[in-house]
Amino acid sequence: MARAPFVHVNFQPSGGRRRVNADDIVRTLSDEVRAGRLPGGARLPPVRVLEHQLGISKNTAQAAYDELVVRGVLTARERDGVFVAGSSAPDLGSIELRSAPLPRFRSFQLKRSALAGPDVIPLSMVFIDPALLPRDRVAECFRSALNIPGLHHFYDAQGYPPLREAISKRLVARGMDVAPEHIVITTGSQQALDAVCRALVRRSVATENPVYQYAKALFESLGAELVGLRLDPFAPLPLDEWRAVLRATRPELFYTITSFHNPTGRSSSTHEISQILELANELDFAVLEDDWGSDMLSGGEYRPTLRALGGPNVIYVNSFTKKLLPSLRLGFVAGNAETVAPLVAAKRVSTLGNPTLIEAALCELLERGYYDTHLTEMQRVLDGRYQRALALLDQHMPAGVRWTTPGGGPLIWLELPRSVDLGDLQVRLDARKVGIEPVPLAFYGTPHLHGIPIGYAFLDSERLARGLEILGDELRRAQGGSA
Amino acid sequence: MARAPFVHVNFQPSGGRRRVNADDIVRTLSDEVRAGRLPGGARLPPVRVLEHQLGISKNTAQAAYDELVVRGVLTARERDGVFVAGSSAPDLGSIELRSAPLPRFRSFQLKRSALAGPDVIPLSMVFIDPALLPRDRVAECFRSALNIPGLHHFYDAQGYPPLREAISKRLVARGMDVAPEHIVITTGSQQALDAVCRALVRRSVATENPVYQYAKALFESLGAELVGLRLDPFAPLPLDEWRAVLRATRPELFYTITSFHNPTGRSSSTHEISQILELANELDFAVLEDDWGSDMLSGGEYRPTLRALGGPNVIYVNSFTKKLLPSLRLGFVAGNAETVAPLVAAKRVSTLGNPTLIEAALCELLERGYYDTHLTEMQRVLDGRYQRALALLDQHMPAGVRWTTPGGGPLIWLELPRSVDLGDLQVRLDARKVGIEPVPLAFYGTPHLHGIPIGYAFLDSERLARGLEILGDELRRAQGGSA
Repeated sequence: MARAPFVHVNFQPSGGRRRVNADDIVRTLSDEVRAGRLPGGARLPPVRVLEHQLGISKNTAQAAYDELVVRGVLTARERDGVFVAGSSAPDLGSIELRSAPLPRFRSFQLKRSALAGPDVIPLSMVFIDPALLPRDRVAECFRSALNIPGLHHFYDAQGYPPLREAISKRLVARGMDVAPEHIVITTGSQQALDAVCRALVRRSVATENPVYQYAKALFESLGAELVGLRLDPFAPLPLDEWRAVLRATRPELFYTITSFHNPTGRSSSTHEISQILELANELDFAVLEDDWGSDMLSGGEYRPTLRALGGPNVIYVNSFTKKLLPSLRLGFVAGNAETVAPLVAAKRVSTLGNPTLIEAALCELLERGYYDTHLTEMQRVLDGRYQRALALLDQHMPAGVRWTTPGGGPLIWLELPRSVDLGDLQVRLDARKVGIEPVPLAFYGTPHLHGIPIGYAFLDSERLARGLEILGDELRRAQGGSA
Repeated sequence: MARAPFVHVNFQPSGGRRRVNADDIVRTLSDEVRAGRLPGGARLPPVRVLEHQLGISKNTAQAAYDELVVRGVLTARERDGVFVAGSSAPDLGSIELRSAPLPRFRSFQLKRSALAGPDVIPLSMVFIDPALLPRDRVAECFRSALNIPGLHHFYDAQGYPPLREAISKRLVARGMDVAPEHIVITTGSQQALDAVCRALVRRSVATENPVYQYAKALFESLGAELVGLRLDPFAPLPLDEWRAVLRATRPELFYTITSFHNPTGRSSSTHEISQILELANELDFAVLEDDWGSDMLSGGEYRPTLRALGGPNVIYVNSFTKKLLPSLRLGFVAGNAETVAPLVAAKRVSTLGNPTLIEAALCELLERGYYDTHLTEMQRVLDGRYQRALALLDQHMPAGVRWTTPGGGPLIWLELPRSVDLGDLQVRLDARKVGIEPVPLAFYGTPHLHGIPIGYAFLDSERLARGLEILGDELRRAQGGSA
């Protein structure tokens, strides 16, 4: 790759012939040089490049160059190649380099990164402790998938069919009517949300307020009109208020996390889920259910999902990413006979398809039963951490602080007295190596809540205790209490 | 997972307490049943689920249920659980299941799949023969990447840093000024195009006409206004016409494939590239260069790209997918200090990040030098297939048929006489097990070309010969020639 670049010139055969001949080359290059389109010093393609591209003999190309040298149009330099005469400038000669204009790009509103580092206790972390994740079993399944004959060449735009089979079985066992052919495998649940919004004829989406902030940013980047439906994790859903807002705005779609809502940890009651379905019918909006937290719930039983109660028209999204390994980036969306084709098309236009090997490895993991045994083990530990978090909050939080009791999912919402300045608190905690993430971007306008998510799944007992103790300490200080 | 589902109910502590007590449970459930929000027959959460979620003792939960049974609100059924009294309906009782409305989804204009199957000769295939792709070496690199300590947990939203280093080196060697921190790894080049268009403040994009059809569909799905610039693969770029169209429409961005254009195989001359840069400055549009075909060009030298001539403001996209293994789905976009942050943000909102293992395996492949030796071997074979394709076209095509001589990339454009009906031709060829893909969706409105792309990289010599012979035969028949 150390050779000088050469210019590219297009040649066309004349006189109805199918291939270029030496005359065509001589004529074209003479014209290009005379018209100033090939400046002095420009390096021409090597003979064998012309020979190859145009499908002509080496002699033909060489003869043309020789003729042009004799005419003084080109000069040949020993070992360097053939150049346009009239300048000693090397390489591209005097071709003027003009910088292209900059594109005008948006500035995306994404959350600031929280304080990070090995000595930091990240209290708002939404991820699960990497020590609890089954790296070795995943690696084993990758090794096995590498041996599947013929696997590695192409991809299935909808997703590896045996994986769709395996996912379908799991959903059916949870009371959801989902056939393998109605599932689309995606890069995490994020691409699933992207496909759904991209497929909408009219991009008008209602979400809870607060909302999972990357969903909001995603919908906004697709030009969606958004409307937020107020959610208070300590109260029933204000469905009359929702009805009024929905009637006034008439969105096409309601995006909702009915279990272990991000960032509040709230779950809707079964009655509330059925009321959402009534509202959907009354006001004619479709429903997109994001069930990200469900597999973090301990116990083999389950609560019904919107998809289970509302049937196959409900679009259902989930992901294996957090529960298995974030680096896998594997989620899915479940539609039905009417919706799956546009969802596949929306995925195709965004990425064409995703890496087969990842899909095959996950399939292996599900089929071997590793995923279920992993969930059982992991849920046992997470159950313990959840109980520990509730006990620590009882112990360390000063009066006036409230929190949700989600029972699963990785997030507890900690609601603080209004007298506590969240920015100040974050700065003070940063100084003590405790990371918190207030989530202003999860709200529409001024937040009606005043708190932070606490992620209990990422931290072991000792670090969780230390983090919450320091948090309690700073909260008391902020309230002018114990100094 | 075979147990019956149970309803979810939210409980809140009363009287300023932090945890729910038995009275709260009794009161809440009585109220819910009385108000009809918990219908007869509905199964309640098992005691241990309440215990876990609410962080209360088993005795507290059991005492509440016992009291409600005595009050006749609930009934306990041996081994089955606790249910709302008043109905023998199992499980969710008489909760009314209401089907959700269907979302209104667009119908995407995507190309029909061509005839496929092991006995079919796909003449328009854009992919490279799988037999030429280095599956074993890729698998080896995956096995090696699986052993990188600590690799598998998280992902880098911008892409695995060592891979960005390796790509940067390659681009710099080709005369492009691209730092590792200005590269974003993507799911094929498709996600790279998605990120660029998504980042635009004003989504107004000019493309060549015809255009790579998935780029057009992608931009359309992002709501972009598109304008097509007529391209005739047998003629110079009509830059005066382009200027007039661009002046009238003032797009923000010009998306272009300057080498081995899909679907025509045309490459712009170096002079034309510099003129595109002049136009960009004159009319203030940014440039997005898709260089998908360059590594399929034989020889170590190179022609300058738009990015090389136009500098770091030119956004440059490429992919390893076709040249390595389509199932890897790995591409990238190169921006600069100003553009990289919005590009990363646009990628984050679309997929958050992509699977690390794929990125690490490709990095290994580049660092070991496997990719370069693979390209050398593959280019040697593709060079041969290209020459063979030119010879076969000479031999089999009737008069009036023309084709491009791209010299690289997988596509030759075959321009047919207007008297040939492309639909009829496809039907006749289907019957003889030869697949062609007319590309009406690559054009804006009525196509000004009348032909099909021929992919010479997918077929071995024998199948290419047979396919082109049958094509020539059907073309002569269509023209009323030899019968």
